[in-house]
Amino acid sequence: MPSYKAPLRDMRFLLNEFTDPARLRSLPGCEELGPDLVDPILDEAATLCEEVLFPINRSGDEEGCTIENGVVRTPQGFREAWAQFRDGGWPSLACDPDYGGQGLPKSIALLFEEMICSANLSFGMYPGLSHGAYAALLKHGAQVLRDTYLPKLVSGEWMGTMCLTEPQCGTDLGLIGTRAIPADDGSHRITGSKIFISAGEHDLSENILHLVLAKLPDAPPGTRGISLFLVPKFLPTPDGKPGARNGVLCTAIEHKMGIKASATCALSFEEAKGWLVGRPHKGLSAMFTMMNEARLSVGVQGLGLAEVSYQNALAYARDRVQGRALNGAAAPDQPADPIIHHPDVRRMLLSMRAEIEGCRALAMWVAQEQDVATRHADPATRDAAEDFVALMTPIIKAYFTDMGWDATATGMQVFGGHGYIREHGMEQYVRDARIAQLYEGTNGIQALDLVGRKMGAHAGRYLRRFFHPVLAYVEAKSEDERLGEFVLPLSKAFGRLQQATAELARRGLSDPYEAGAGATDYLKLFGLTALAFVWTRMAEIALAKEGEDPTGFYRAKLATARFFMARILPRSGAHLAAVMAGGATLREIEF
Amino acid sequence: MPSYKAPLRDMRFLLNEFTDPARLRSLPGCEELGPDLVDPILDEAATLCEEVLFPINRSGDEEGCTIENGVVRTPQGFREAWAQFRDGGWPSLACDPDYGGQGLPKSIALLFEEMICSANLSFGMYPGLSHGAYAALLKHGAQVLRDTYLPKLVSGEWMGTMCLTEPQCGTDLGLIGTRAIPADDGSHRITGSKIFISAGEHDLSENILHLVLAKLPDAPPGTRGISLFLVPKFLPTPDGKPGARNGVLCTAIEHKMGIKASATCALSFEEAKGWLVGRPHKGLSAMFTMMNEARLSVGVQGLGLAEVSYQNALAYARDRVQGRALNGAAAPDQPADPIIHHPDVRRMLLSMRAEIEGCRALAMWVAQEQDVATRHADPATRDAAEDFVALMTPIIKAYFTDMGWDATATGMQVFGGHGYIREHGMEQYVRDARIAQLYEGTNGIQALDLVGRKMGAHAGRYLRRFFHPVLAYVEAKSEDERLGEFVLPLSKAFGRLQQATAELARRGLSDPYEAGAGATDYLKLFGLTALAFVWTRMAEIALAKEGEDPTGFYRAKLATARFFMARILPRSGAHLAAVMAGGATLREIEF
Repeated sequence: MPSYKAPLRDMRFLLNEFTDPARLRSLPGCEELGPDLVDPILDEAATLCEEVLFPINRSGDEEGCTIENGVVRTPQGFREAWAQFRDGGWPSLACDPDYGGQGLPKSIALLFEEMICSANLSFGMYPGLSHGAYAALLKHGAQVLRDTYLPKLVSGEWMGTMCLTEPQCGTDLGLIGTRAIPADDGSHRITGSKIFISAGEHDLSENILHLVLAKLPDAPPGTRGISLFLVPKFLPTPDGKPGARNGVLCTAIEHKMGIKASATCALSFEEAKGWLVGRPHKGLSAMFTMMNEARLSVGVQGLGLAEVSYQNALAYARDRVQGRALNGAAAPDQPADPIIHHPDVRRMLLSMRAEIEGCRALAMWVAQEQDVATRHADPATRDAAEDFVALMTPIIKAYFTDMGWDATATGMQVFGGHGYIREHGMEQYVRDARIAQLYEGTNGIQALDLVGRKMGAHAGRYLRRFFHPVLAYVEAKSEDERLGEFVLPLSKAFGRLQQATAELARRGLSDPYEAGAGATDYLKLFGLTALAFVWTRMAEIALAKEGEDPTGFYRAKLATARFFMARILPRSGAHLAAVMAGGATLREIEF
Repeated sequence: MPSYKAPLRDMRFLLNEFTDPARLRSLPGCEELGPDLVDPILDEAATLCEEVLFPINRSGDEEGCTIENGVVRTPQGFREAWAQFRDGGWPSLACDPDYGGQGLPKSIALLFEEMICSANLSFGMYPGLSHGAYAALLKHGAQVLRDTYLPKLVSGEWMGTMCLTEPQCGTDLGLIGTRAIPADDGSHRITGSKIFISAGEHDLSENILHLVLAKLPDAPPGTRGISLFLVPKFLPTPDGKPGARNGVLCTAIEHKMGIKASATCALSFEEAKGWLVGRPHKGLSAMFTMMNEARLSVGVQGLGLAEVSYQNALAYARDRVQGRALNGAAAPDQPADPIIHHPDVRRMLLSMRAEIEGCRALAMWVAQEQDVATRHADPATRDAAEDFVALMTPIIKAYFTDMGWDATATGMQVFGGHGYIREHGMEQYVRDARIAQLYEGTNGIQALDLVGRKMGAHAGRYLRRFFHPVLAYVEAKSEDERLGEFVLPLSKAFGRLQQATAELARRGLSDPYEAGAGATDYLKLFGLTALAFVWTRMAEIALAKEGEDPTGFYRAKLATARFFMARILPRSGAHLAAVMAGGATLREIEF
């Protein structure tokens, strides 16, 4: 059976040493966020994930959700776990204090999210979707909607969903067929079919609040004619209880490759009562404010699954004896050596570790900027941070989830044939990780977002939020001899990224097909360069502390950084070549 | 629901144009193998796979195998399908005519194998294991064993297994604990526990012949003390019927990520009656003759699954409309354009196609050399061919199965979120593909085989069987202007392979850890270079026939070759860099 311990040491390193703790504490509402306050929160979060959520992960996968006459049941133990989660106040962690939230910043919440994803991704889908609904309602809902519903979402009494996809449209939301007809009382009647609705129906909460994309009768065609509506499963009574059943029914749940304990529902809306959220026809941009945050969270799903897979692969590699080390017996008293002594097994473990720790650092950087973007007193500082987050969001979503897929598959590989057997739990991580590359916009769509919406926008303003700090750092450290082994490959990769950017910008300007042709490889190149940057910065810290290092933490950071530079970063060359090849080889073939 | 059509056009191209048909027909027993004879066989094979095996693939995955009191049942339809397979004479296709076989060469059989893997990998496991048992018995069994058992295996009346793995040993067979005690009648009594035995117990045939690795009482320690035994489930009566039950029991079947319709059994041998196959203590090398053929077949599993995934991804991309093409509407009469017009979707499809067609060509090259190795009149020619097959076997096993994993995941990605839903069938291909990277020696073990056993052996003799023809080809074509766009990247990759070889040979000679540290990346680099070679040769043929090409087959070959060179082959640089980085970054970390 697998095990999981939250990687608190690495998380605290990032929080207290890698990101700028003073910068976080300079933000309104974050003044007190030192280790004294944060450490116990992380400890409690870890305990909840390790002891409550993790033990029902495998059983949840085996059992799955069930549906009977429209009633969906989560697997055994999920109701109880949710009750503990709710009663512990965890849904409110990063919510607005005006509605009962604890007001913690993303920098902290993200670490908790990672732990949840490691412990039980299926479970995490339920509060994850609720938080998305909370965010959309908070930002775009009318005051009366906010007052009625937000306290319920924040307390976890009620939960939420995001209803976008329909059978004929996923990526292309302009094709939405769900209709909203205005009623006399200012509400609307919603009719249509939605599919792939995570947490669309379940037995965890007494009410479910659906945020539904639909078209008004006078809607302009395409994506400019989509509106957002709040449709509760039960209409609230004046005293805030679930009242009459609304016209929304779960007609089926999907049978999926993974996240089987997450109910993925087909919902039928039949003249359901709903309330407009935000302005008419502006639903897509309202939905996107929560999509962007959701995309960061989906990236973290890849990270969390990679982490738990790594932990178990490492434990197995220490424990399993098979063959002798290539330079002579490492455990002569045993019939064979632990496989961790074999270089190819170490390669696999280090591949996982270098990506995981790099991605976690990158995520923390972006999370802190998100906190700056939402909380900083200075508007220009907020805007700059928001640019950066906007730029990095598709990279985190796609790079992290591809990484999660590769890393969980690698973790499975460390187990040999035993990795293929369900009871070891390693293959579940792979199956669960697969969805993250597909939902919240496929990874191909993320790449198009990067090259189509972020790269060229505002004369490259988004790009500069990444390029300038990297350039400044490389220049500042160019004389630092000890850091040279990291700065050199970083600047080489950065040069490749600059070259790819220039080429894509040049060609893509006249021909969007060319931008699309290089998009995925460009995103990978960008992700690798960003990891090289955070690894170099982590190496800088580690070099300074290597001397006073009783636990070996900083030495391991340096070793992992070196592995990343030597054996992962060179992939940037292949991605550059693919970008430079352009669209010709894609156009030529007639399938 | 997915569909499958055997890629007969490409198969015939390889058989009749890419490999040397005259060379095949020069081999004893192959004189008649022209299109007149082969085409109908391939057509019939395709029909069987498309119409009998494919329709029970999804249902087999959903239903799985069951066990009750040691009795294992295959999913619905498998017994009937096996009866058709058997009665059609398919088990005998590539078997020795002396025992009832049709004596067809590997070059033909391999194509059939690919079709089976595309149609129903789980089903294919049963005849696949039987054929392995047949091969070991044919080569190493005493005449009386061959006479008794081979006709039964060839006819498909009885089936076979390979019993290697035990709980404490997979890779490291030196740790085997199963014992064989000589009996007075010349047979042995086998006692021990085996796990992961594919087709170890089932309801397809009236008898099952286990080929079991075990240790004799006087066995030397480690892998030099392993012997091979034939242990039938039912002891044959004098008239060749299944007689008394032997002491072998199925105690459990595994619950796995995929190939769920293949029964993966834990077998308990309790004083089971068995007969020595081959010489005492030489069982491992006897087993390896069938392992090597099995490794080629496992490589083809990756290929077959990639092919069926590609076909369905292509069909979906043509059918699914979503968004508009980046250069203006491609289907203005529809609400959106088929996604095949999107460059990133084309990138995914071409990535699959370029790997699949390249791997198929490489497999056919190796298969023909295998036929030469077993059939050619001249011993030196046989030896040279055998060297080549030995060299390429680990590359085919590991590169093809990694490719199968990546390609099936890519095929799933083309479906977006729908790929994650079981009913579309795409995620089953991914789950089924995963096992091929693990069994018959993990892919890491394949890489160690390549650098440890093949690279340096006989002063590089194995390597020369690949290096010399590539070098000769590149030199011969260096003046060919039209072919230059392919020869140039080929020679660049080949240069990288030579550099990596020299470096690994130099470092690995003094330190096997260094060879192990670069093994996996070296294998990938080798595989990419081999694909570049076969793609260049295919491009050469296509260039010559491009003019007389009503179907566009040769133009598509050229377009795919160009894609391979521009967008896949550059990965060779990253693998070279990883090889050159050496073992330092693997040794440094203390986990």
